[in-house]
Amino acid sequence: MRIAIDAMGGDFAPDSTVKGAMDAAREWSDTQIILVGHQDRLRPLMTDAPANLILHHAEDVIEAEDEPVRAVRRKKDSSMVVAGRLVHDKEADAMISAGNTGALMTTGLLVVGRMEGIERPALAPIIPTMDGRGVLALDLGANMDAKPEHLAQYALMGSIYREKVAGIAKPRVGLLNVGTEAKKGNELTKAAYPLLEELPINFIGNVEARDVLTGACDVLVCDGFAGNILLKSLEGTAGAMFSVLKQEFTKSLKNKLAAAVLMPSLRGMKQMMDYKQHGGAPLLGLSGLVVKSHGSSDSEAIKNGVRQARLAIESRLTESISQEISGKRVESI
Amino acid sequence: MRIAIDAMGGDFAPDSTVKGAMDAAREWSDTQIILVGHQDRLRPLMTDAPANLILHHAEDVIEAEDEPVRAVRRKKDSSMVVAGRLVHDKEADAMISAGNTGALMTTGLLVVGRMEGIERPALAPIIPTMDGRGVLALDLGANMDAKPEHLAQYALMGSIYREKVAGIAKPRVGLLNVGTEAKKGNELTKAAYPLLEELPINFIGNVEARDVLTGACDVLVCDGFAGNILLKSLEGTAGAMFSVLKQEFTKSLKNKLAAAVLMPSLRGMKQMMDYKQHGGAPLLGLSGLVVKSHGSSDSEAIKNGVRQARLAIESRLTESISQEISGKRVESI
Repeated sequence: MRIAIDAMGGDFAPDSTVKGAMDAAREWSDTQIILVGHQDRLRPLMTDAPANLILHHAEDVIEAEDEPVRAVRRKKDSSMVVAGRLVHDKEADAMISAGNTGALMTTGLLVVGRMEGIERPALAPIIPTMDGRGVLALDLGANMDAKPEHLAQYALMGSIYREKVAGIAKPRVGLLNVGTEAKKGNELTKAAYPLLEELPINFIGNVEARDVLTGACDVLVCDGFAGNILLKSLEGTAGAMFSVLKQEFTKSLKNKLAAAVLMPSLRGMKQMMDYKQHGGAPLLGLSGLVVKSHGSSDSEAIKNGVRQARLAIESRLTESISQEISGKRVESI
Repeated sequence: MRIAIDAMGGDFAPDSTVKGAMDAAREWSDTQIILVGHQDRLRPLMTDAPANLILHHAEDVIEAEDEPVRAVRRKKDSSMVVAGRLVHDKEADAMISAGNTGALMTTGLLVVGRMEGIERPALAPIIPTMDGRGVLALDLGANMDAKPEHLAQYALMGSIYREKVAGIAKPRVGLLNVGTEAKKGNELTKAAYPLLEELPINFIGNVEARDVLTGACDVLVCDGFAGNILLKSLEGTAGAMFSVLKQEFTKSLKNKLAAAVLMPSLRGMKQMMDYKQHGGAPLLGLSGLVVKSHGSSDSEAIKNGVRQARLAIESRLTESISQEISGKRVESI
């Protein structure tokens, strides 16, 4: 299999991306890693590169502050767009980028292309849960306004992804809502509920925001706006609590000594709550696999992105989603 | 002033409500407290009641599990509906209830009545923040689907409430959104943004969910669905973190000893994060004042509800909101 990495995207690129790519190429000799970026920047970092790591030159770079749609349209020779084109042209089975999120979603839509039958691709990161399993939440920001049918497509795609990539049999799919009863919610969730009931998935009904962290489901379906509110609230609360704890725990010598004993536990919890640790987020609903790695990805995160992409390719994720979606479309005619 | 208390509503009623009412009546001798409920239940608890505490008999009770609209329509002699009628008939200046939230919102709409010019009343609890000020968030669940004009009315009502009741000059009003830039958001927030800019309030723009807890604004405007996701995420994250901390801190004798030293700090943080501690939530946009106390209110919480209602009555809150709203309506004709 062949995996393209946007070598110029991310806060620590290209050092992190090149090192991650080299490590991945060494670990998986059956995989060809295509490093896309400017040869003058990349080649000096690629001494001792294994044979299955190849360089694909791209003249330009999309920057973090670039306006997404314009950047993708104009910078046709940027590392991100070139990597997307490799996937579109079937010269790569997947692409990974830690670059500008908006630009990557645009690259997915305009360069890689939507899967037939999918109206809106979805960004699907893992939200960490207290039981360590994590929940795949989608959509987390690709589309702010969703229709009930979009939520149904998210549910189907998320369920297949969790089954194929995480190996979870019959993943529990929940609908993010304000109460557990079927009739609760806003117009969107009330209309989506019966659509989710009809899908060939393990739909467990509505899930309240307070139960997400305790692992109420394996796949959480929501529109991009609500998903953002959820994720940012989790992040914000955890961050605020850690900062208060830090303040309290350094208030006196007595507290400092006690806190030192508990530090490993606290550090463990902090790491568990950090969603950046939990691998890349797939953009589901495209005709090829695109994985968004966090902007602050180090080489380990890039390598994890490759691991994730390998699992998805091996399990023929994109084909499975496509079959389910087209099956549903035939049925509904 | 006269404040009606639904004596039969809440998990610990009528003991908690009667004790809270007695304490309030003793503290504020200029206030007549009208305790509404069944005389057979209340009178035995009212020995030594001060003269400004009076009993208003109501035959029936709305239970926590009653279907709200049906209960309010059928149980016309319930303590909650009778208290609402006292407000409607100007026999009380405010009512407080710790009973069934849905039924109280229905009582507000059908019995007390909407304020002229307000399409949707809003439930406006205080979400605790790390700086101790708290943020008044509205709407937190009265209406699941809001229109841009509703958000504008929430903003105006919330701003007036914070100014009048909390004494905050020029309260900072923020719009809950997925990013701080003006053009961010879903259709609802994008359409609401320019409406909020035109209001005579201190609109500070969009506020992200992660910044709510650090006190980014004094009033947070959102639709009921997003507000619920926000509040339940905060609750859920805090709860989950405390439970992990508890687990970790009791894992070994060493940890237990260290944790004992830090317990006061942890308990303080837990209390700070508990939004039940932060008084009742007004239902804004009615022609009279209605305060929802938490279902698990003790006598102290009921007394705090009275304190809050007194401040609102003294500052002529309802009249102020009504004037602003009708002023705006005249302008917009």
